[in-house]
Amino acid sequence: MAWKAPLRDMQFVLQHWLRVDQSWPQLAAYADVDLDLAVQVLEEAARFSEQVLAPLNASGDRQGCRLEQGEVRTPDGFPAAYRAFVEGGWPALACDPSLGGQGLPLVLEAALQEMLFGSNHGWAMYTGIAHGAYLCLKSHGSAALQARYLPGIVSGQTLPTMCLTEPQAGSDLSLLRSRAEPRGDGSYAVTGNKLFISGGEHDLSHDILHLVLARFPDAPAGSRGLSLLLVPKWQGNGERNAVYCDGLEHKLGIRGSATCALRFEAARGWLVGQPHGGLAAMFVMMNSARLHVGLQGLGHAEAAWQQARDYALERRQMNTPGQAKAAQGADLIHLHPAMRRALLELRVRSEGMRALAYWAAHWLDIAAFADEPEQRAQAATLAALLTPVIKAAFTEQGFSLASKALQVFGGYGYTQEFAIEQTLRDSRIAMIYEGTNEIQANDLLLRKVLGDGGEGVALLLGELRTEAAASSGRAATELGGACDKLQAVLANVRSMAAGDPEYPYRAAGDCLQLCATVLQAFAWARTARCIEALPALAAQRREKQESIDFFFDYLLPDLDRQVAAVAAAAAPLPFIAEAF
Amino acid sequence: MAWKAPLRDMQFVLQHWLRVDQSWPQLAAYADVDLDLAVQVLEEAARFSEQVLAPLNASGDRQGCRLEQGEVRTPDGFPAAYRAFVEGGWPALACDPSLGGQGLPLVLEAALQEMLFGSNHGWAMYTGIAHGAYLCLKSHGSAALQARYLPGIVSGQTLPTMCLTEPQAGSDLSLLRSRAEPRGDGSYAVTGNKLFISGGEHDLSHDILHLVLARFPDAPAGSRGLSLLLVPKWQGNGERNAVYCDGLEHKLGIRGSATCALRFEAARGWLVGQPHGGLAAMFVMMNSARLHVGLQGLGHAEAAWQQARDYALERRQMNTPGQAKAAQGADLIHLHPAMRRALLELRVRSEGMRALAYWAAHWLDIAAFADEPEQRAQAATLAALLTPVIKAAFTEQGFSLASKALQVFGGYGYTQEFAIEQTLRDSRIAMIYEGTNEIQANDLLLRKVLGDGGEGVALLLGELRTEAAASSGRAATELGGACDKLQAVLANVRSMAAGDPEYPYRAAGDCLQLCATVLQAFAWARTARCIEALPALAAQRREKQESIDFFFDYLLPDLDRQVAAVAAAAAPLPFIAEAF
Repeated sequence: MAWKAPLRDMQFVLQHWLRVDQSWPQLAAYADVDLDLAVQVLEEAARFSEQVLAPLNASGDRQGCRLEQGEVRTPDGFPAAYRAFVEGGWPALACDPSLGGQGLPLVLEAALQEMLFGSNHGWAMYTGIAHGAYLCLKSHGSAALQARYLPGIVSGQTLPTMCLTEPQAGSDLSLLRSRAEPRGDGSYAVTGNKLFISGGEHDLSHDILHLVLARFPDAPAGSRGLSLLLVPKWQGNGERNAVYCDGLEHKLGIRGSATCALRFEAARGWLVGQPHGGLAAMFVMMNSARLHVGLQGLGHAEAAWQQARDYALERRQMNTPGQAKAAQGADLIHLHPAMRRALLELRVRSEGMRALAYWAAHWLDIAAFADEPEQRAQAATLAALLTPVIKAAFTEQGFSLASKALQVFGGYGYTQEFAIEQTLRDSRIAMIYEGTNEIQANDLLLRKVLGDGGEGVALLLGELRTEAAASSGRAATELGGACDKLQAVLANVRSMAAGDPEYPYRAAGDCLQLCATVLQAFAWARTARCIEALPALAAQRREKQESIDFFFDYLLPDLDRQVAAVAAAAAPLPFIAEAF
Repeated sequence: MAWKAPLRDMQFVLQHWLRVDQSWPQLAAYADVDLDLAVQVLEEAARFSEQVLAPLNASGDRQGCRLEQGEVRTPDGFPAAYRAFVEGGWPALACDPSLGGQGLPLVLEAALQEMLFGSNHGWAMYTGIAHGAYLCLKSHGSAALQARYLPGIVSGQTLPTMCLTEPQAGSDLSLLRSRAEPRGDGSYAVTGNKLFISGGEHDLSHDILHLVLARFPDAPAGSRGLSLLLVPKWQGNGERNAVYCDGLEHKLGIRGSATCALRFEAARGWLVGQPHGGLAAMFVMMNSARLHVGLQGLGHAEAAWQQARDYALERRQMNTPGQAKAAQGADLIHLHPAMRRALLELRVRSEGMRALAYWAAHWLDIAAFADEPEQRAQAATLAALLTPVIKAAFTEQGFSLASKALQVFGGYGYTQEFAIEQTLRDSRIAMIYEGTNEIQANDLLLRKVLGDGGEGVALLLGELRTEAAASSGRAATELGGACDKLQAVLANVRSMAAGDPEYPYRAAGDCLQLCATVLQAFAWARTARCIEALPALAAQRREKQESIDFFFDYLLPDLDRQVAAVAAAAAPLPFIAEAF
């Protein structure tokens, strides 16, 4: 019952759902990439995840990290797994060939990340931010900084961190106090205390590159006064930089990941991007990180589904209704209606999320490499819209599906004898970090829907309606209806927001969930169309058809609740008082 | 930010919502009990829970239990807390005065249990089954067994266990293999392996009374061949009985509770009730336990609400929409719309559950002590209907509200620095044990709604419609409408079940949630009526009015989703196959 990479479904999404063999040739950077190569890469990544990472998942959780005289010891096997990761060339997967990268599409990077997080979330925390940091440096770093530090990120010789949070500043970056003072030699002295820094110190890579938000002495207050500094663990002269790990968090989950309190004491750093322009530079990294966090939700959902399925196919309890007494005294529990419902929801939601997450990554590929500037801009807009939905909705699903899977195990699920309780614990963080899910909802509705006059949503709805038009039967009707509802709800929110500016903040969470459901309808409508390419008798086609039916029968009706919930938020919300 | 017993709301429910000063005098057994006495009892229980149990909650979780040469060492402070519990007379609270009990109403026992579970779930596991075992022995034990063992349960000198589960038999008791063979002296030799036995061995009480389901040699197969045996840890002659603790489970939560694997090796036991009549006897205990588990959900919800509120009233992040920049750079987070929504949901759901749980306990009081047999029977029917709803819906809320509260803490909520991650872990078990929530749903719909021709539901709807008729304004309309929907849905399920016997099994979970929402509407409609007794300017009245509005505005709309979900379950559910 070990975790297995869902290669068959990954290939299905690439081949039939995204049709990469038609789209990659249109992007010059990927002209040499085809489905066969992609499948080979995924198979290699699957081997690494199944054989190297998955076996360290439970032991890494139990052992956790240790802080010894300022040095962090990660769980047994973690450093060796990282060496294997580097030797496999995985950090370079989607990096520029001119920098030593393999130049493969981001959609493959997304599939890789899904496997890393699905097989061992704790370990994958060390590498999870690397591609974001690569993009950040590549877009905002000076030529000198790029030349010095990008090759190490691409090769995996160095691992980056994202140093934002301080004790008083979590969601609110405007409250950051860390300072950066010019040293007069082009470098800066960075001073401050950073909290919850994943991989802030560890024994996986020799060097660690901290990307730190801090303020110059002349900086304006608030988030517009933040600058981004690169602070390496080791200075050029081979001396340790003044960055100290003062403590590790004891956490509900991802215990194999070292979550550090870092102290910078006039540590030497270099400016990335413009003075006071730290937020813009950091958001390149953050957007990549948010998509990766959504992939964590997918990874947990898939892991939960596999565990629940395998257990339900072995465990016998009670007779199913309307069946003759089972020969062995009881039926396998996967036959019971309540268990079938839970299992189908696990499978269908996981597969739907996979299609959508890879779709978002595919738009990022188009945004980076399409010939036409307008096509690039539109793709970037779509990816920006999809990112908060994927981050928030998928992580919520990752946690809630882990809980559903745990329920399939009954009392055994509550014990450490099975991995599902760890999946539940690990999955919970993804709803919080890289911007809480509430912040994602505000980002989506306030900034990206109401903030841009509606062009982004129109673009997205255009994509969905194109699919509805190409579909037939129930899929066409259901997707068309879902698009109508989304469009009406958002128009109504926009018009009501004029008279009640707080309303969209009250409705944002439900709006995001509504978008997620409509996107799932899109995913399954397109699946309904593309399974026609599969042999009529193929098991995969039959299973996909069952998933499509289950989605439209059992899951899509949730849409009306979300529509009603957005409407309900028109009512005022009272304030909470101190206990009296 | 320590846990506080919600005394004010408890008193509100007793005084205004249940109007115990009118109902207790009608029950001869409680003729001497009035509100003043009840409040005194609750205040004492609050002191015990706040001062003795709550301080051991985190340390008990961290320390856990140890098994040393067959003896279980509970966490530091647990045995002393139990001695204080016994000295306080708490085990006797709702027991018969003729047996040394205090003869107080079960509704006070429910409030006590809420406090015990809310302040320290792990510790409260040791005492949680005691009242059920008392009722079981009292109704099914022989006079000799009662004389010998009831006083010890009432005084707290002994603690009982419920020994049902075996490795191959969790939800399915028909698969139990433990055996009981007559010894010829009136006692039985009990042999078998029991799993997940809470408090199966510990150092709180000297003696432990195991209530064990086992089979006689001539027993029929299945659950009708089960007999209930009382197996004490110590035999009359002062020798240890042949019951051995072979291991403790390592669990996601309730780590202060010793969850034991027990081995019975021809241990001496005594029959409780009839041969092969074990299920009937055990269900007296189980029904009590199920209500207690529902109270765990309530206890966790209340604890989660308190933690989230206290944190949100202290932590500052970002500016609330439409407000001037806060003087201190950021606003308190309880002012943000998304946080207000979460906090209000925590408070409103907790308070609604409290009213309903105490209502169920109140029906049990009436079932036990009303003069008229018909009134007793009707009260018992109502309590039986309410029990699975309370067990399943409240425990699901306990867990999901703990997760909502954790979200309010942001990254801090994921660390062990705050108690909320423990609340999340502890709360999860309640959805599983004493019959999984899926089994509760089947119990409600298949046995108690469809199984009895509809009389029980008619009785319940009668109570709800009486309240709607007494209400006015929005509460009357909303509750009336909710009753109509429930009635229509259940009638439809009944008629569809004739042609599709599996349908109710597919719909059972949503039917239960639907019932829970209608009951919440009832709780808040009655609250709307009874706050008229409060002074117009009272803070409590204003807060309750806000809760009523929030419930009808934000939470009741969920009802339509549940109606739609029951309808959706008319679609067939495919079967899961092995991975191919």
